[in-house]
Amino acid sequence: MSLPESLDRKAVAVLGGTGPQGRGLARRFAAAGLSVVIGSRSAQRALDTAAELATATGGTVTGDDNAGAAGAGELVVVAVPWCGHAELLIDLAPVLAGKIVVDCVNPLGFDKQGAYALTVDEGSATQQAAALLPNSTVVGAFHNVSAVLLDDPAVVAIDSDVLVLGDVREATDLVQTLADIIPGVRGVYGGRLRNAHQVEALTANLISVNRRYKAHSGLRITDVGTT
Amino acid sequence: MSLPESLDRKAVAVLGGTGPQGRGLARRFAAAGLSVVIGSRSAQRALDTAAELATATGGTVTGDDNAGAAGAGELVVVAVPWCGHAELLIDLAPVLAGKIVVDCVNPLGFDKQGAYALTVDEGSATQQAAALLPNSTVVGAFHNVSAVLLDDPAVVAIDSDVLVLGDVREATDLVQTLADIIPGVRGVYGGRLRNAHQVEALTANLISVNRRYKAHSGLRITDVGTT
Repeated sequence: MSLPESLDRKAVAVLGGTGPQGRGLARRFAAAGLSVVIGSRSAQRALDTAAELATATGGTVTGDDNAGAAGAGELVVVAVPWCGHAELLIDLAPVLAGKIVVDCVNPLGFDKQGAYALTVDEGSATQQAAALLPNSTVVGAFHNVSAVLLDDPAVVAIDSDVLVLGDVREATDLVQTLADIIPGVRGVYGGRLRNAHQVEALTANLISVNRRYKAHSGLRITDVGTT
Repeated sequence: MSLPESLDRKAVAVLGGTGPQGRGLARRFAAAGLSVVIGSRSAQRALDTAAELATATGGTVTGDDNAGAAGAGELVVVAVPWCGHAELLIDLAPVLAGKIVVDCVNPLGFDKQGAYALTVDEGSATQQAAALLPNSTVVGAFHNVSAVLLDDPAVVAIDSDVLVLGDVREATDLVQTLADIIPGVRGVYGGRLRNAHQVEALTANLISVNRRYKAHSGLRITDVGTT
């Protein structure tokens, strides 16, 4: 499989790449032929996951701490837990300058009744990233695609669209292409950064759907293109 | 076509039934065989729309002011503009007591960049309805289904799921059944009332999708049942 021209020879870093969502995305990106750098708080855990994914996918996967991965990636995916989101981005702002940063983080709380959306001062995790990274181009994406399905090599294609949010057309186009390389997945432009909150928060609803229907649910947007 | 048992002989009121979303829902409910009461601020406009929809669908459609319609409906759909939402529900709380109230209202603002979600003190329109109607059972639904498609009789089936939100299983089950009677539409349980905001707000994203792709977009939830 050959990569689309806009992604060819691009190194993609996945910060938080040893967590479920990051690991699943890294697996799919590597399987599609992208050069992937796994980032983690622990460089050793990143290296372990990288070795595992390289073997599993036959792709190029390396590992480093989050700062090293952020420096190595031309496109940087942020898939860290919400509780460490702001702190990490403050630290990495210099190294992320000039890059496209793809935020996948869902600020959710959990209690006995399930998941619920947390209030974020900036409006959303994506907008927080944009505020903390004034010299990067921040895009929101991959919020609602099942981590379980992403990380399961037995799942050949994932029945899900990815809503891509951002204020810079060139960047959202590139991230739509990045989503498109995952088999079954389609990147769909989903609006500006100011409308990221509800896409992040909708993951709480999908968790409710998953409980009720014993599913790994995803979203499709109808009447757009050729699903 | 025969109605599901839980809806048989039930009168459904649609408050704001002369607006685009309300009128489209009323049309589909009448076409499916439900007895529909259109409510509007103006009883005369409600009667006019009712007469038009009765002719168009061959169904039973009557009209009244919103208070009269709320009294006549066993199931009451609220599809009024957000700016009149709280005021109407405060007025109608006594007549809505003991009923299932289905809130479809999306609190959105619009500017040159398109639509965006408004902040609601109670969290969402649906939660505002629940707060103002303590003796009713409030369910959120029909937020994301295209008003244009609902109200177009040339559209035989609408490719969209309806996320149904609520804290009372019997009520959400009934509203899922109500969604199911619209051809092509499927009601999917989408979580508790506290997770209604993002479903309402997501309509802003679908408006962005519609602009970008020149579509009448909708949502499907994947990996649930048999789409």
